[in-house]
Amino acid sequence: EISIEDLLKNILGGCEETTTGVIRIKSLEKEGKLLYPIIAVNEALSKSLFDNPVGTGQSTLDGIMRATNILLAGRDVVVVGFGRVGSGIAYRARGMGARVTIVEVDPIKALRAAMDGFNVESMKKAAGHGEVFITATGNINVIRREHFELMRDGVILANAGHFDVEISKKDLEELSIRREKTSEHITTYILKDGRRLHLLADGRVVNLACGEGHPSAVMDLSFSLQALSAEYIVKNYDKMTKTVIPVPEELDKIVAIMKLRSMGLEIEEMTEEQKRYSESWLMGT
Amino acid sequence: EISIEDLLKNILGGCEETTTGVIRIKSLEKEGKLLYPIIAVNEALSKSLFDNPVGTGQSTLDGIMRATNILLAGRDVVVVGFGRVGSGIAYRARGMGARVTIVEVDPIKALRAAMDGFNVESMKKAAGHGEVFITATGNINVIRREHFELMRDGVILANAGHFDVEISKKDLEELSIRREKTSEHITTYILKDGRRLHLLADGRVVNLACGEGHPSAVMDLSFSLQALSAEYIVKNYDKMTKTVIPVPEELDKIVAIMKLRSMGLEIEEMTEEQKRYSESWLMGT
Amino acid sequence: EISIEDLLKNILGGCEETTTGVIRIKSLEKEGKLLYPIIAVNEALSKSLFDNPVGTGQSTLDGIMRATNILLAGRDVVVVGFGRVGSGIAYRARGMGARVTIVEVDPIKALRAAMDGFNVESMKKAAGHGEVFITATGNINVIRREHFELMRDGVILANAGHFDVEISKKDLEELSIRREKTSEHITTYILKDGRRLHLLADGRVVNLACGEGHPSAVMDLSFSLQALSAEYIVKNYDKMTKTVIPVPEELDKIVAIMKLRSMGLEIEEMTEEQKRYSESWLMGT
Amino acid sequence: EISIEDLLKNILGGCEETTTGVIRIKSLEKEGKLLYPIIAVNEALSKSLFDNPVGTGQSTLDGIMRATNILLAGRDVVVVGFGRVGSGIAYRARGMGARVTIVEVDPIKALRAAMDGFNVESMKKAAGHGEVFITATGNINVIRREHFELMRDGVILANAGHFDVEISKKDLEELSIRREKTSEHITTYILKDGRRLHLLADGRVVNLACGEGHPSAVMDLSFSLQALSAEYIVKNYDKMTKTVIPVPEELDKIVAIMKLRSMGLEIEEMTEEQKRYSESWLMGT
Repeated sequence: EISIEDLLKNILGGCEETTTGVIRIKSLEKEGKLLYPIIAVNEALSKSLFDNPVGTGQSTLDGIMRATNILLAGRDVVVVGFGRVGSGIAYRARGMGARVTIVEVDPIKALRAAMDGFNVESMKKAAGHGEVFITATGNINVIRREHFELMRDGVILANAGHFDVEISKKDLEELSIRREKTSEHITTYILKDGRRLHLLADGRVVNLACGEGHPSAVMDLSFSLQALSAEYIVKNYDKMTKTVIPVPEELDKIVAIMKLRSMGLEIEEMTEEQKRYSESWLMGT
Repeated sequence: EISIEDLLKNILGGCEETTTGVIRIKSLEKEGKLLYPIIAVNEALSKSLFDNPVGTGQSTLDGIMRATNILLAGRDVVVVGFGRVGSGIAYRARGMGARVTIVEVDPIKALRAAMDGFNVESMKKAAGHGEVFITATGNINVIRREHFELMRDGVILANAGHFDVEISKKDLEELSIRREKTSEHITTYILKDGRRLHLLADGRVVNLACGEGHPSAVMDLSFSLQALSAEYIVKNYDKMTKTVIPVPEELDKIVAIMKLRSMGLEIEEMTEEQKRYSESWLMGT
Repeated sequence: EISIEDLLKNILGGCEETTTGVIRIKSLEKEGKLLYPIIAVNEALSKSLFDNPVGTGQSTLDGIMRATNILLAGRDVVVVGFGRVGSGIAYRARGMGARVTIVEVDPIKALRAAMDGFNVESMKKAAGHGEVFITATGNINVIRREHFELMRDGVILANAGHFDVEISKKDLEELSIRREKTSEHITTYILKDGRRLHLLADGRVVNLACGEGHPSAVMDLSFSLQALSAEYIVKNYDKMTKTVIPVPEELDKIVAIMKLRSMGLEIEEMTEEQKRYSESWLMGT
Repeated sequence: EISIEDLLKNILGGCEETTTGVIRIKSLEKEGKLLYPIIAVNEALSKSLFDNPVGTGQSTLDGIMRATNILLAGRDVVVVGFGRVGSGIAYRARGMGARVTIVEVDPIKALRAAMDGFNVESMKKAAGHGEVFITATGNINVIRREHFELMRDGVILANAGHFDVEISKKDLEELSIRREKTSEHITTYILKDGRRLHLLADGRVVNLACGEGHPSAVMDLSFSLQALSAEYIVKNYDKMTKTVIPVPEELDKIVAIMKLRSMGLEIEEMTEEQKRYSESWLMGT
């Protein structure tokens, strides 16, 4: 019989792909319980700049279309949260012809949304006119009783953020006299006044529940980072400490370069003169 | 037993929804064989301006995503044909982050595409770099042997136009040593040199074959036109001749007004003064 | 001394560039007073599809930026009229980051605006929140007393449509206690309650008054049409009647082809097989 | 007579607005020569996220339009550098109908450009087809002899980045037989083979040289940050050390909130429950 201790002896290090994973591993690190070095793939730019806005952005709309077959053009879509996921959804919804409103708690993100031409409102105001609501906040109960009470008949509620907590199912339950499974991915809550609110995927993340999740063309970035990080550990573990470290910048860039090449795209090379100028400038004159 | 003649006696008139249908009925009309008046719903603005660009535009991309789960962002997408369907697809593909090239035979449509920021090329040039090809021309063999020979390994071929004739299956057959059904909606042709070309839905229209067709929010426009046209015939058949007529402009506008209202949107009313000015202007001074 | 009659003898025909011109010449034609054939350049597709949306679209925003140096990003812009000019302005304003609302009297145009993701409202509603108002309707008094009364302090009023009649200067005068020339192209009306409304170019078309009008890259289309039409008349005047005729389709296409070529862009050629198919299809099966 | 030492006694602290300024002040700090605390306004999010992409983005295109009156629609525009400035220019150029190519040395920025639908190429490739070149790299000689040699006749060269060093004037001089001042802001270099290259503003930043620089609606953000930072120093100088510090996050947010309010926009407030959840989550579970 093999003990965990036996197994651990052979592990040189690890890579962690997810936000939640990194948080937990950092707790271990803080308590001094991390037994080998971890590379936090999650934070690499060639993951974080694409996985969320591009991958979740597309697959969320794809999931909603598969679940409902609604027309996005002309649709009054409210995106709650304008972080990486929310902004990715918002641009794509607009790109499909939707009229998009953003709800944000962070004034700087809200200002970015406005400067990019989005309508920006409080949740209460948006609740009164939206036709489709998509949450992407990482927080709980962002759409709740006080908002359901204001909504139009027939609205669609979808979550692209966090577990199944962003849209309050408890409040939906309490406000409704009945609920129906109206199609594979739609639960319809019938309120006392007859209005019908359609919740997709029981409030779970709609891109995974109703679609097929991220396209491979965005997962390849993360998986390449994992592979190169693993190789890096094999080559460097004897110099590494039992800590959580970011993906080395070089690897991050290599992944982006390989991806561009696979797309048939070329980057520009700096001349020697430019490299010197660039360094002198960054170092200050 | 009831004869066709018996049935025909009770028919006051008809509505025709499709392009093909209208063409055939106009042949009948020309030959003097039309037995009752027909309203050509197909040509109404509240159908033609939305059904194709908006409805087919969305459902084509939706169909491709369902069939392949590819990422559209960054993808080199070639849309062949920049008419109503093609332009609807092109804008939406760009809205999802694709890099879009247009192939057109009509110089005026090609110029519109260029002035809207699209790359415009010949089919031969586009064949060499595209990753996804979508045909929407209403013509035959727009992608054929000479183009397949130039294509990159792994390209996706989809038709959003006309039957299954826009992409030459005969040429694909002849060029390939083998073909495989690689997933429900994908037939992969393996060429002699090993390249793999993926044809969606056997070249049939991808929005119907791989998706669910037009969303109801665009079909409602056509069906309303049909309903109001039928009512119009009932009220006016005694004044109508056995010809094909367009949807009366009034009905066309009523449908658009009802649609806007259902979306919670308002149009502006002209004042009496403006109506007079508008008429005097149109009539010429 | 030479009489008009003498001069007329030598004129083989003419071309008319403007909408107004064509209207008047058609009146002459109707009264049987047209003395030589006229080609109505104004209606050619390679003029009408570009001159207004593209040329006026850009030069209107350019004129407003030159007159005011306002930031368009995040700006609440109300475009009144979603015809060729208005839609061209609206897309470009959105492309610069503005939040755009459309006011329209025609339900079909209003529906197009909504399906393209624009906010659609009545003039009264838009008056209450807009920061910049741009008229492009071809009608009179589209912004008037009842709207000025609702406006925010500091709004900008610009006309891109018709003479100086779209924004009611009479109402502005009556509502204000004073007006000031606040910069070269801005007249500021100070209302009784202290609000300040800034009218650009005294309500005249802002692209001509505050900018340099259409860029040459859109005027070249019209001028090429004029030149080719003149040549056409010289070659064909003996077969032409004293009527207003459209630009021959062939010339229209030649201009578009030359333009594309000057931009370095290529169109696709139909094969013989495609030409036959295309014709058979259009003629009906 | 008052010495610098006398003046310095009364200074409690300072704010620095520019990138260059912050670099130099940090040198002073490193050498222990900083005599009072400095708040680096330049790095505040409510400056850096808007000033460059939004302010320079618009004013660069504005400057080019004023200097040349070219049509942007359909234009082949090459933006060199996809950082904050370059990306702001690229989105707006596309929003005006241009066909946009990006040249980048950083693979991650290049990948972002591609994923946002831009064409991505090396400078050499882009040199051969572009009609307008806009540099925004912060580096020297990014367009130089080897690129000028490939360019089409009549191209426009503009710099939106750094001093007048991004486009090599030395190489332009050496390649040309003559140069002409063809309009107020255009210097035309006539090459030996007759091609004409038009350099705007002698290669200096085109938004300042040919336009009016940033609109006030983006400068207000920086100036508010300066004012609040000054106030902060007055209130807190006795607790501050002689170092360069960032704008306190609170002030950064206040500026964004005030800006949103001035635009008539509202942010959402977190509930107490959400604040707790948000904190617990960030701290790790």
